[in-house]
Formats: sequence, structure tokens, C-alpha cells
Amino acid sequence: MDRNIEALDNNDPLAELRGEFLLPANTIYLDGNSLGPLPRAAAERARITVEQEWAMDLIASWNSHGWIELPVKTGEKIAPIIGAGPGQVICCDSISVNLFKLLTVALQLQEGRNVIVSQQDNFPSDLYMGQGLSRLLGEERCQFRMVEESALQSALTDDVAVLLLSQVNFRDGSVHDMARLTAKAHQQGILVIWDLAHSAGVLPLAVDDWQVDFAVGCGYKYLNGGPGAPAFVYVNKRHHGQFQQPLQGWMGHQAPFEFSPQYRAASGMAGFLVGTPPILSLAVLDEALELFAKVSLQQLRAKSLALSNLFIELVDEHPALQSLQLRSPRQESRRGSQLAFAHPQAYAICQALIAEGVIADFRSPDLLRFGFSPLVLRFQDIVDSVRILDRIVTSELFLAPQFQKRRKVT
Amino acid sequence: MDRNIEALDNNDPLAELRGEFLLPANTIYLDGNSLGPLPRAAAERARITVEQEWAMDLIASWNSHGWIELPVKTGEKIAPIIGAGPGQVICCDSISVNLFKLLTVALQLQEGRNVIVSQQDNFPSDLYMGQGLSRLLGEERCQFRMVEESALQSALTDDVAVLLLSQVNFRDGSVHDMARLTAKAHQQGILVIWDLAHSAGVLPLAVDDWQVDFAVGCGYKYLNGGPGAPAFVYVNKRHHGQFQQPLQGWMGHQAPFEFSPQYRAASGMAGFLVGTPPILSLAVLDEALELFAKVSLQQLRAKSLALSNLFIELVDEHPALQSLQLRSPRQESRRGSQLAFAHPQAYAICQALIAEGVIADFRSPDLLRFGFSPLVLRFQDIVDSVRILDRIVTSELFLAPQFQKRRKVT
Repeated sequence: MDRNIEALDNNDPLAELRGEFLLPANTIYLDGNSLGPLPRAAAERARITVEQEWAMDLIASWNSHGWIELPVKTGEKIAPIIGAGPGQVICCDSISVNLFKLLTVALQLQEGRNVIVSQQDNFPSDLYMGQGLSRLLGEERCQFRMVEESALQSALTDDVAVLLLSQVNFRDGSVHDMARLTAKAHQQGILVIWDLAHSAGVLPLAVDDWQVDFAVGCGYKYLNGGPGAPAFVYVNKRHHGQFQQPLQGWMGHQAPFEFSPQYRAASGMAGFLVGTPPILSLAVLDEALELFAKVSLQQLRAKSLALSNLFIELVDEHPALQSLQLRSPRQESRRGSQLAFAHPQAYAICQALIAEGVIADFRSPDLLRFGFSPLVLRFQDIVDSVRILDRIVTSELFLAPQFQKRRKVT
Repeated sequence: MDRNIEALDNNDPLAELRGEFLLPANTIYLDGNSLGPLPRAAAERARITVEQEWAMDLIASWNSHGWIELPVKTGEKIAPIIGAGPGQVICCDSISVNLFKLLTVALQLQEGRNVIVSQQDNFPSDLYMGQGLSRLLGEERCQFRMVEESALQSALTDDVAVLLLSQVNFRDGSVHDMARLTAKAHQQGILVIWDLAHSAGVLPLAVDDWQVDFAVGCGYKYLNGGPGAPAFVYVNKRHHGQFQQPLQGWMGHQAPFEFSPQYRAASGMAGFLVGTPPILSLAVLDEALELFAKVSLQQLRAKSLALSNLFIELVDEHPALQSLQLRSPRQESRRGSQLAFAHPQAYAICQALIAEGVIADFRSPDLLRFGFSPLVLRFQDIVDSVRILDRIVTSELFLAPQFQKRRKVT
């Protein structure tokens, strides 16, 4: 196929944004879905937070530099990215801890129902949190059921309190139809918690319009907030005031600085705060989110699909790469911003790619995973990475002993 | 009293350590018990973590820069500071979230007992977490009782599963005898969780020798780990393997990168991890802890007491300062590293002090709180701060309208 890759890059309306990131030379980064790259402004914000705010203004920074407001402020920056109106998103803790809060809240709202349903191949931490809550509360109050994707609809029975799903599957990148599944669950009186870890910042979302009940998501993937950046929680306004989450820490108190011995939950999302937030990590995420004011999610989605479609086409064209089996849906509307290919030597191929400067990742047992971050990738990067992949597979470079040896892989 | 302050500073074996911190000019910082100051090395570590590790090595940093090991590594640096042998401390989440884990663990270990006892004036977040757990589990499985300090011993009845206390009271700095109270509780078959927020890094502790069951503590006070730095958890080895904490996130899995749908808790402290840790905040704390390799807790304690004794003596000598009532114990062995004075105008005096460069803090309704961080303070700082305090009180400078107006105070 004739392609003018140069023209694709020249006409890319997002091309200039690459300059906003600090990126290593001679590297094609196809793992922004695990850890987004560093926005230059976020590096500066880290320096200011540490060397000016913390060092010079010390404790006063909680007020004078707005540290105390950061969970709310950062949450409000995430809100438009997921299609939420104000007052429904806050930034704190990890996805897992936030899921614990939401699962207990959903059970509170669903008296008479005790079942949590999730998908067998949901992100494991989401499953583990459900299992942990069930163990803590006992089966009578909380049963946790995992079902195959194909059995999801039939699992929506009238004992189900809450359905816990990820919009984008972390392995193969397949996408659930959030609006349809949410509506379907609601018809059965079931609330839905969506994990948007692999969605936020790369898929157009409309949580308010879709009447989503609850969502959580990740600060360190497509939002580029840095390693282990705090997560976010969304709770639809219609549920506010009808529950109290059980991880009652002082930051979630109505008046934390009264130091009253009795907990009184703050109204709205502030009641989801627990302990003192990690300000350095939170400030960096807050700054990284500024980039999203410059682009639309529709633009990001269009480029992400163009990049991943190009990747698929190029793999299709290389005879040696027929040994890779695409495990992500070919239909673009059913895919997130990543592609997974199965290969018996996936681990070794991934190591060989990394050695050649193409950062992909491996998911046990046999998946190569490529993420397409539309803020930084060029179309030329896709061409180059498939060319390198082809060379590695054609020449069986991956059989070299250094690539075969397993190391701990994140 | 004749004092040679210059000699005190000249003979201070810790004097050189002040140079390891980046401190604002013309400021006397008496609030290291709220937020420790910035160690210079920690600023450099923040830069390296952001601009080199994250930016240049991206996802590979989890292995190549040991991010994945940080919660354990940082925990092991805290262990000797609290008198713990290896394998018993890990660094993660906030104190509040960690208390939730420990409270559920203690209840698991104490079948047939359902009561948590704490002290009415314990740090409120600790109380709130107990109240939240009781609400979640129900009174039958978990009753939360708050008692006055004077009623503590009589509250140790045979239905009590766990006693939850802070070693140092956050308001008045009074200190519990941990060894004695732990032994007393054990005699009644009660486990004890100690909150070491205002202890770690400034009081010599011997949690192993004292047969402490559980402890939590703070990274951002005397450990100087930066605003909202992750907290730590200690679990005595004799309890390991006998429980499973319920916040089961993927970082606490035996093999997180297998992505198995079934949770299997990692053995030892790793089972206390939940979600992905905030690496920037954690790396900075990890670096800040290096300072503790250069000093002994005995040295820190001696200087902290010398500073606070000097403060009390100087206040005693100023007639105008008799309007301040010392609310901390005069007996030094009963005090942590802070002093609290009551005054009807405490809020305004605190504001006036801050305006003069003496950073103290205010605790509702009428307490002025002064913290003595022995790593950075000089004896001359104590003389200067009491001189300024005396000037403010003598001249009633605090009556100026700008100091009377209440702002949000952390």
C-alpha cells in the first residue's frame, strides 16, 4: 500500500504536543498505557512544589499554595475528560482503595441485594478488592461472582447489587459499550462501577450522559501524572448524600481542623478523602492535566485509531509477522488505544524490542502489548517500530539468550 | 539565669546537620511536627526521579531504578528508627488507611472479642477510622469505645480485642509509656496498635523489645519525607502469617505480574500493599531517611529535650508570658518533642508569630503549639522565638485586626 507517512505527520493537528514532553532520544515509547511520559511543565511543577513551596513556605503552603484544595481541583480537571459535570470527581488514593469505598457504598444503596458481579478477566486488582470485601463482610452481606464476558448479561440477576467492570480490557484492549451495559444493568436495578484506567485521556467518555453511577480511574497512564499518581473517583450527583463511605479519615471530615472526636462526613466528593494526600505526586498530576485543555478527546481518539490501524495494516503486510496473532478486536470502535498480539515467544520478542529502543510490554503468558499515546507518537514511529519488530521476528533475533532469560517484568 | 547560648550551639553534636536542609531565610520553623523541612538530598532525589528515571527510563524504572522495591526498602530504613528488626515495616498509603488494615487484622486475631478501645483525645483520624469500621461491620462484630485517658486502664476489659493509642498526644505532646501499656494490655489478652506519628524520628523507640503488636507512623513529620509522604506499618513477626488484611490490591499479591484472577496474599509485610504507590512521594521520603543513618535517636532526643526545656525556662522568665499556660507535662520524660500553651488569643498570637517569621501552629480552640525538630533548630532560634513571642504578647500586637481574622488553618 502506498502511504505518505510524512504527510500524515505534517497534517497531524496534535503533532505540536509532542514538544510538550521530555522524551528519551532514540526511543519509541509504546507503553504510555502503563506509564505516561513526562510533560515538561510537570517537571517544572515538581521542582516548584519541592524547592519553593515545601522548602520555602513549609506548612503555610497548605493554604498559600492550595495544597489542601488539590484533590478537588485536580478532580475538577479530570471531570471534563470523562464527561462529568462539576462536583462529582475527586483525586485521591489508589484505584484499589477507591474501589473499596465504592463497593461498600453500592452495597449500602442496594439493601436486600448482596452480590457483586465482575468479569473473570477484569484487571486483577479490581477482582481482589471485591474478594477482600466479601471476606471481610461475609458471604451473607457480600458475595463476589466472577463470570466470563459472554455470561455477563445472564449474570445480571435480581440479587446483584453492583456490576464492576473495566471499560477497556487491560490485556487485549477490547472495549465495553458503557452506555448500553449501564442501561442494561439499571433495568435490573443494578448499579455499575466502571474502571476507566485504560480509558481516561484517550477515549471520549460521557459518564453523566450515560447515567453512570460510579467510576474510578488512573492518573499515571494516559493522563501522564507520573508513576503511581493518585487515582480519581466519580460519583454521579444523583447518589450524593445517600451513603457514607467507611474509610473515614480526617481529610473527609466536614471540618478537619476542628479535630472533633466524632466523624461527620463532608458533603459531596470530599467525603471520599481519607488521609493526607501525597502532595508531590498530586501536584505533578494536576499540572500534567493542563495538556488536556488544549485538545479534544475526539482528536485524541481519531489519532489513536489512525496510529493503531496503521500498526495493524503494517503487521498484516509483513509475511514474518503472520506468526503474531492479533488478540484485540479488528473493528476500531471495539478497541481502546492499545493492541495485543499473541506469540509463543512474546516475552523474548518484547525484550528484543526494548533492546532496540521500542518500548512495548509483555503480559503473561504470551501477549505483546503496544499502547498508542496520541499526544506523543508520530506516524513515523509506527512505521519504524513495525520495521524493527519485523527484523526481530524475521531474523529470530529474539532467540538470543539475553532475551530468553526471564526477569521480573512490570 | 545566665546562659551561654553560643556555647550550646557550638557544642551541639547535631549542629552540622542543619546544613543538610534547604531552609527559608529569616524564619524560625517550630512546626516540623506538622511538616518536616526539605533535606537537600531529597530535592535532588525528586529531580532525579522525575527528570531522569521517569522521563528517560520510563516504565523500565520499575525494575532498573527499583521503584517496585521502594515500599519495602523505605520500610526497612524506618525499621531501626522505631527499634524494629527487619521484615516488619513497610511504607504505603496513609496512616488512616493503614489503621483500617490493622484494625481488621486485630479483630481477626481476636476471635470472640469485638471491642476497639481508644482515647477520646487521640488524633481524630484514628478515631474516625475505628468509627467507620464499626459502622461497616456492625456493632456485633466491632464496637468502638472512646474513653478518657484516666479511664484507660479500667477500660481494658475481657471483651476488648484491640487498644488503639498514639504514643504522643498531638495536642499537648504528652507521652504514653508504650512498654508499660502494651504489657498491661497483653495481660488482659488485648492487642495494641500504636500510632507513632509524633514519635518516629524524634523519640527512641524499641517496638520489638516492648513486644508491640502493631504500629503506624507518618512520613512527613519528623522523618521529613515531604507533604503527604506515605505512611508506614509495623507488624511484629510473631503475628505474621496468621491473618489476611482485607484491602487486597494487586501490589500485595504473591505474584502481581501473573495477573491471576484469584488473590493470594504475599507473605510478610508485602501483603499490606494495596494499589500502585505514589513513587515521587515515596522516593523523596526514602532519600530523607538517609539522614537518620548519621545520628542516634538518643542524640536527637537529648537535643529535643534541651531545646524544649530552654523554651519553657525562657517563657517562665518573661512576666508577660505568664498569660500562657503550659499544657504539656513539665516533666521531660512525659513529653514528646512539642510544647502546647493555652491562651485565649492563641489564634491571633500564632498569626502574629508567623508574620514575624516564627512558624508555630494553632490547635483549636486555644492552643499554641511549638515543635522542636532537633535536626534543624539552634538554641539561638529558641531564644529568638521566645523574645519575639514576648514582644507580641507584651505589646498586644496580636490585637491588630489582620491577626484576629480567622482563616482556614491547617
